[in-house]
Amino acid sequence: MIVRDLHAARETDRLVKSDGWDSTRLLLAGDDMGFSFHITRIHENTSHVFHYKHHFESVYCVSGEGSIEDLATGTVHPIRPGIMYALDQHDRHRLTAKSEMVMACCFNPPVTGKEVHRKDGSYAPVTETA
Amino acid sequence: MIVRDLHAARETDRLVKSDGWDSTRLLLAGDDMGFSFHITRIHENTSHVFHYKHHFESVYCVSGEGSIEDLATGTVHPIRPGIMYALDQHDRHRLTAKSEMVMACCFNPPVTGKEVHRKDGSYAPVTETA
Repeated sequence: MIVRDLHAARETDRLVKSDGWDSTRLLLAGDDMGFSFHITRIHENTSHVFHYKHHFESVYCVSGEGSIEDLATGTVHPIRPGIMYALDQHDRHRLTAKSEMVMACCFNPPVTGKEVHRKDGSYAPVTETA
Repeated sequence: MIVRDLHAARETDRLVKSDGWDSTRLLLAGDDMGFSFHITRIHENTSHVFHYKHHFESVYCVSGEGSIEDLATGTVHPIRPGIMYALDQHDRHRLTAKSEMVMACCFNPPVTGKEVHRKDGSYAPVTETA
């Protein structure tokens, strides 16, 4: 059994900081669960284009408000606590936070912990980070 | 892109009620994400023995307080918002809620939606529910 505390993990290299967001990786590929699990904070009044070409991701809003735009269709979905979105088509999307959003994220395949977002908004496939 | 709302899903058969807990399945095997994602509420002042012999599960505490006991070792870990546990050894465990706990749960392999907890605390393997 693995037990981890978000607040303690934020003091370690499990916390990855980027421009307008940060992510704390509570489970990574090395934990051998078959998925990774992250708590991600999208900072207030920021907007980000992401495109996980090599991963499936689900995101559950724990707190905060904003929106997700499906960049293939232009459809905008509000985000508030209790909303989950899942990028089952590797959907390119724009995530916008009106207030700081705290999101519980699952990735398949699991993130290794070495990824950064590339210029195209994707994470590298496992083969490029292993 | 899949977008689902916990509050709406609780009015559908995505909500499964059991004795002392309920679980709303926001993602199931049929969504083809490779994992399932559930928001589970453990009711106040209840205690439950679970043993997912056929699944890996991670659980993140969104709200509420309680504890998890590893029944192989007797070790008790407190649960509060920000604590995540992962049953990487298919650990048999006792989950106890002092106050209602809201938990974000990921399962691999994904739950099909047809499982119930069996007398031994497990979910049936996929081959028995498909």
